[in-house]
Amino acid sequence: MIDCGEGCQIRLNQYKVKKSKIDEIFISHFHGDHFFGLPGLITSFNLSSRTKSLRIYGPIGLKKFIGTLEEIGSFYLNFPLEIHELNPDISELIHKDENVEVSTLPLKHRIPTTGFLFREKEKPRKIDSTAIEKFKLSIPEIKQAKEGGDVLRHGDQRIPNVDITLTPKPRRAYAYCSDTIYDEELVDLISGTDLLYHEATYLHDMQDQARARGHATAREAAIIAKKSHAKRLLLGHFSSRYKDVSVFLNEALEVFPNCDLAQDGKTFKI
Amino acid sequence: MIDCGEGCQIRLNQYKVKKSKIDEIFISHFHGDHFFGLPGLITSFNLSSRTKSLRIYGPIGLKKFIGTLEEIGSFYLNFPLEIHELNPDISELIHKDENVEVSTLPLKHRIPTTGFLFREKEKPRKIDSTAIEKFKLSIPEIKQAKEGGDVLRHGDQRIPNVDITLTPKPRRAYAYCSDTIYDEELVDLISGTDLLYHEATYLHDMQDQARARGHATAREAAIIAKKSHAKRLLLGHFSSRYKDVSVFLNEALEVFPNCDLAQDGKTFKI
Repeated sequence: MIDCGEGCQIRLNQYKVKKSKIDEIFISHFHGDHFFGLPGLITSFNLSSRTKSLRIYGPIGLKKFIGTLEEIGSFYLNFPLEIHELNPDISELIHKDENVEVSTLPLKHRIPTTGFLFREKEKPRKIDSTAIEKFKLSIPEIKQAKEGGDVLRHGDQRIPNVDITLTPKPRRAYAYCSDTIYDEELVDLISGTDLLYHEATYLHDMQDQARARGHATAREAAIIAKKSHAKRLLLGHFSSRYKDVSVFLNEALEVFPNCDLAQDGKTFKI
Repeated sequence: MIDCGEGCQIRLNQYKVKKSKIDEIFISHFHGDHFFGLPGLITSFNLSSRTKSLRIYGPIGLKKFIGTLEEIGSFYLNFPLEIHELNPDISELIHKDENVEVSTLPLKHRIPTTGFLFREKEKPRKIDSTAIEKFKLSIPEIKQAKEGGDVLRHGDQRIPNVDITLTPKPRRAYAYCSDTIYDEELVDLISGTDLLYHEATYLHDMQDQARARGHATAREAAIIAKKSHAKRLLLGHFSSRYKDVSVFLNEALEVFPNCDLAQDGKTFKI
C-alpha cells in the first residue's frame, strides 16, 4: 500500500481490497492526506487478530509517531511491526521480496518526502519449447539452460544459451512521485517506467503558486514523463479548486500522449 | 464537539455541520474511534485559514500527541490551540462560557477515560409582564428585579422579587458516558440529566465480556439511567457483531422507558 490518507479503509472496503493482503506500507510524507489513515489501519489489523508482521517504510519520525500512540494507549500491537525510516536525500533500495524491488525517490516538497520506484525482479530465462525438440535436450540440459548456461555435449558441441532460451519479458516498473515540485533530477532515476504516477496539483497558469507550495502542474508532470521516456503517465493529487479534472488531462496531453487521471476506484494494469 | 473519530469530517459535511462553529473539542480517550479524526480536523482548520482559537480537552498525553505531529511536520498551526489535559480520577469543572458549564466524569475503561457533563448556566429571573402593569414598574425597578432584588418604594412598600419575576426554566443537562463499564459511582454525578448518553457495546448475555473489555451492556446503561433519574437515555457504541441494533433498544426498555438509539445523522432536541 502506498500512502494511507484518513478514511482509506472506507475505500479499501468499497473496492473490496482485502486488508489482510497488505504486508508493506510505503508512506511518502507526513501530511494528513498521505498519512492520517495509518493509526486506524493499524488498529484494524489489531482488531482482526493479525499475527503476521507488517513493514512500514516512511520518513524519519515514524517511530516516534507510532511510539507516541502506543504510549498514550491508542493501541497495543499484537503483531510484529517493522518500521523503516528513510533517508530523504538519496535513492536507495529499501525492500526486496520474491517479486519486486522497491527503491526510494528523493522528492522536493515542503517537508521531507520520498517517492517510490517499484521494479519487478529479474526473471530467469525461459526454455524455448521448440528447442527442446530440435536439440533433443535432456532434463539436466534444460536445467542448465534455465540457469543461463550453454549446453556442452561430448566432443566439442556447444549449444549457445540464446539458441534454446527466450528472453524474459522486460521488468515492469511503476514510479510514484507525490508530492513534489517539477524536478529534473527525477528523470534519470525513473527512466523508462511502464507507469509513472506524478502529482499535478495545479494547471500551468499557476506554476508560481505550485512551486511555492511544493507542487507541480499537469504540464510539468507531462514533461517529466516525456523526458524519462515513461510509457504511460498517471496524473493525480488535484487541487479541490478545480471542479472538472479533465482540464489536467487536456493540459498534459499537449506534451505527452499517453496520460490518465488517477481517480477513486480506477484500476490500471501495468 | 465531543470525540472525534477517523472520518468525522465526512459526517460533518454530510449533515451540514459547519466546522467553523466548533470552538471546543472534548476527547474522552485515545482509542481510534474517539480520537483518530482529530489530526485531520486540525489540518482542515489550518487550510480554512481559521484564526480564532480552538480549545481541546482530553486525557494526559494530548500535548505530546499534538507536539509529535508538529515535530514531524504534519501541520504548523496558524491559529491558537489551547490544550487542556484532564485528571481522569476526579469530576471537575473544566469549561465555562456564556451558555454552558462542562464538568468531567471519571469513567472506568481500559485506558484513562473521561465523560462530560454539559449543564446550562443559571439564567437570570425573567420579569412577569403582567406584574409590570399591575405594579406600574419603572425601568430602574425592572432592572433591579431582573438582578434578583425586591423593589423598594417610598415609605415601607416592598414588592418581593418572586411577585414580579418568573422562575427561569430549569437548567438543561446532557451527560456523555463513553466508554465505560457499569459504574454506580456515576449515578450521583449525573443525577437528573435531561439526556444521558451511555455506551451499550453488548447485550446483557455478554455481561462478563463487556466488563472484561471495559464496556457496558444495554441493560446496565438503562439501570444507570433509572438510578440517576435521567429523563431520557441515548444508547450507542454498539459492537459490530450485532447486525440489528434494535435489540439494544428492546433490552434497555425493559428497565427504563424513555430510550433511543444513537445512530448516524440523528438529532435529539434536549
